[in-house]
Amino acid sequence: MSRPRAAIVVTGSELVRGERTDLNGPFFAREALGLGLDPARITVVGDQAEDLEDALRAAVADAELCFVSGGLGPTHDDRTVAIVASVSGRELVLDAELEHRIEEISRSFADRLRRPYADFAGGVRKQALVPAGSIVLGPAGTAPGLVVEADGCVVVVMPGPPSELRRLWPAALATAPVQAVLARARRPSRRALRFFGASESAVAKALADAGGDGDGVEATICARDFEIHVDLIVEPDAEARADLIAAGLRTPLERYLFAEDERTVQEIVLGLCRDRGLTLASAESCTGGLVAARLTEVPGSSEVFLGGVVAYADTVKREELGVPDEVLATHGAVSAETAGAMAAGVRQRLGAGIGLAVTGVAGPGGGTEEKPVGLVFFHAVGPDGEEALRLELPGDREWIRTRSAVTALHLVRRLLEPERVRNRH
Amino acid sequence: MSRPRAAIVVTGSELVRGERTDLNGPFFAREALGLGLDPARITVVGDQAEDLEDALRAAVADAELCFVSGGLGPTHDDRTVAIVASVSGRELVLDAELEHRIEEISRSFADRLRRPYADFAGGVRKQALVPAGSIVLGPAGTAPGLVVEADGCVVVVMPGPPSELRRLWPAALATAPVQAVLARARRPSRRALRFFGASESAVAKALADAGGDGDGVEATICARDFEIHVDLIVEPDAEARADLIAAGLRTPLERYLFAEDERTVQEIVLGLCRDRGLTLASAESCTGGLVAARLTEVPGSSEVFLGGVVAYADTVKREELGVPDEVLATHGAVSAETAGAMAAGVRQRLGAGIGLAVTGVAGPGGGTEEKPVGLVFFHAVGPDGEEALRLELPGDREWIRTRSAVTALHLVRRLLEPERVRNRH
Repeated sequence: MSRPRAAIVVTGSELVRGERTDLNGPFFAREALGLGLDPARITVVGDQAEDLEDALRAAVADAELCFVSGGLGPTHDDRTVAIVASVSGRELVLDAELEHRIEEISRSFADRLRRPYADFAGGVRKQALVPAGSIVLGPAGTAPGLVVEADGCVVVVMPGPPSELRRLWPAALATAPVQAVLARARRPSRRALRFFGASESAVAKALADAGGDGDGVEATICARDFEIHVDLIVEPDAEARADLIAAGLRTPLERYLFAEDERTVQEIVLGLCRDRGLTLASAESCTGGLVAARLTEVPGSSEVFLGGVVAYADTVKREELGVPDEVLATHGAVSAETAGAMAAGVRQRLGAGIGLAVTGVAGPGGGTEEKPVGLVFFHAVGPDGEEALRLELPGDREWIRTRSAVTALHLVRRLLEPERVRNRH
Repeated sequence: MSRPRAAIVVTGSELVRGERTDLNGPFFAREALGLGLDPARITVVGDQAEDLEDALRAAVADAELCFVSGGLGPTHDDRTVAIVASVSGRELVLDAELEHRIEEISRSFADRLRRPYADFAGGVRKQALVPAGSIVLGPAGTAPGLVVEADGCVVVVMPGPPSELRRLWPAALATAPVQAVLARARRPSRRALRFFGASESAVAKALADAGGDGDGVEATICARDFEIHVDLIVEPDAEARADLIAAGLRTPLERYLFAEDERTVQEIVLGLCRDRGLTLASAESCTGGLVAARLTEVPGSSEVFLGGVVAYADTVKREELGVPDEVLATHGAVSAETAGAMAAGVRQRLGAGIGLAVTGVAGPGGGTEEKPVGLVFFHAVGPDGEEALRLELPGDREWIRTRSAVTALHLVRRLLEPERVRNRH
């Protein structure tokens, strides 16, 4: 039995023009997958009526559940509700209670902006028109969500702003038509394997050697900043097969394996520090704050992470991190010696258990024959030892900075992992 | 005369499952728009053959140019080339020269990985099969790009990894079939207006009052971290109308306008500092390095940006930034007084012309009734004065941190802008 298919339609001119990246399609897709549906397609269209209508008709014809976002606003180019009504063969009717609620919201909005309510009145009426027989959710903001059936497909219409969508999402899932589709879904389990430093083709080969995916286990292999993320989506009757595949990946690639869950490396590093009662401080040159920004994106990171120094100029390396003049003069700012002195310096200055440093040439300028763009030195030092690393990274400035930040965090992981796994990368 | 339509098909299981965000669709869309095409639709599908085939057939039927990315790898679930052959009614033929080139690349790759070439041989042959009559580009990596005609639509097939795609892109544009479509395109001009602190509805209202878009001028209004980005796409014969619309936006919103080009606020800030011969240093608490990371993403930022201190712990605020104990004890770490002391401290310690500081409660924990999650203080100080700001931001941790980083940069812009625009936000 196959899982019910889900189709996703996202509307927004700025999305189809590539001026903003769509976040709602991936959100719906992850949710669909977790609910045991088969996300078949994400279509992004602009605000031209015929494009949205084509996309909706195709989605309704192809899927049991269709998620639509965007185009619910008060202006003329917000056409989603009218087109959903047309595709589902329903009339647009005024929902008086909804109109009243939107009016209240808009009046308080007009007050705050000190603008006459008349500026908003036309939009209020438009936003209270819904396809006959739809279930109205919200509104969040001024736009309501809707659940409506069309040709045997349940269409869930949600506002475009991601925060509004997420606020209305639980209510959409709780409606009877959505629950009826979910009752036919088979909620899969998920397994995650996370590798650092392995090549994508080595991981693909290990998967193929383990028999490949299929037969109830779908595998995705995804390379992300030197990490390879393998996710197994496992049907309820395929757990034994998933065990075999996971073992087939684990054995040849064990030294690269760093997690069997979905934690990020910054979460792992903060957890290792917390377990050992150690605090952490960073000293960054070419990554310019990205290491600190990644660490501090984790709630509660302040228990472990004391802070850091972004030492872009050599004077800052010298004065704030105590890198000796002699080291800078002899070896240069981009050197193993400077990285070591930065790590020791930030550890001492900030009184941290662990000091972590990155220095390199991010480009596009500043490279020399001896020290080309992409040359980066890493150093981590703690109470029981230190780890150093030198890499020559390909790619552009953003690529080099991002991968350097991730590599720096993995260096701390390696420094702190228990002995039995210390021979891993 | 309407512009030729472009359709975009992106394939990748991890994309349709929402595990990774598609970057290629937005890339193709921006390129199409700039080339004078009308990007009509971005479709993301997984690696199921029928989904990809449906999406391709729909794209070919609907557009004059179709961009496809992904599914060109060596494994069984890389099906794009076979499906393009089927949709275009062409046979798959072995391109011997291409096979030779891929073999060379794969042999050197096998050498580096110390693996037998036999592991790669099957994939090499598969990747050298192309639809009869196609133009072969590359390869970049091991996958070639292809240009092939199908039913009057020119199909451009590119590898999924964004860096490989970008490397092959100029060659794809230079092919005769693509040039023939571009000859029918009308390359529009673009105008950008960037506002900070205005509401999206105020901008929409100003646009409507100026007559709205249409008649050769398409406008997109896009809210991004407290900035509102307005882009006008202007047909060759509609420049006068674009002037009117731009003036209609500029006049009522002048105090929010900060740029009429596509520079980011960090580029503007670095430029203002450079023009004034000033260096810059940052002191960050809740933004945890995001301000420094944004500044250092700009190539050449090291001429202006000396570095910064991420002062997460109060000890770091005290020791590294010289925030007096008394200020921390009396007013707390999240206060206007601490922000002021952090800005002055980093300016003095790092010997910078401008000191910038942010301190706040990013959440989810740590909020109190007096100092709730989202309360953030900003301070910028330079040789001729200072600017301070207190905000209560809604949203989650990421939202608060991102918007705080952008706001901090705008505070420096405000500090440095010439007098005549100092009354702007």
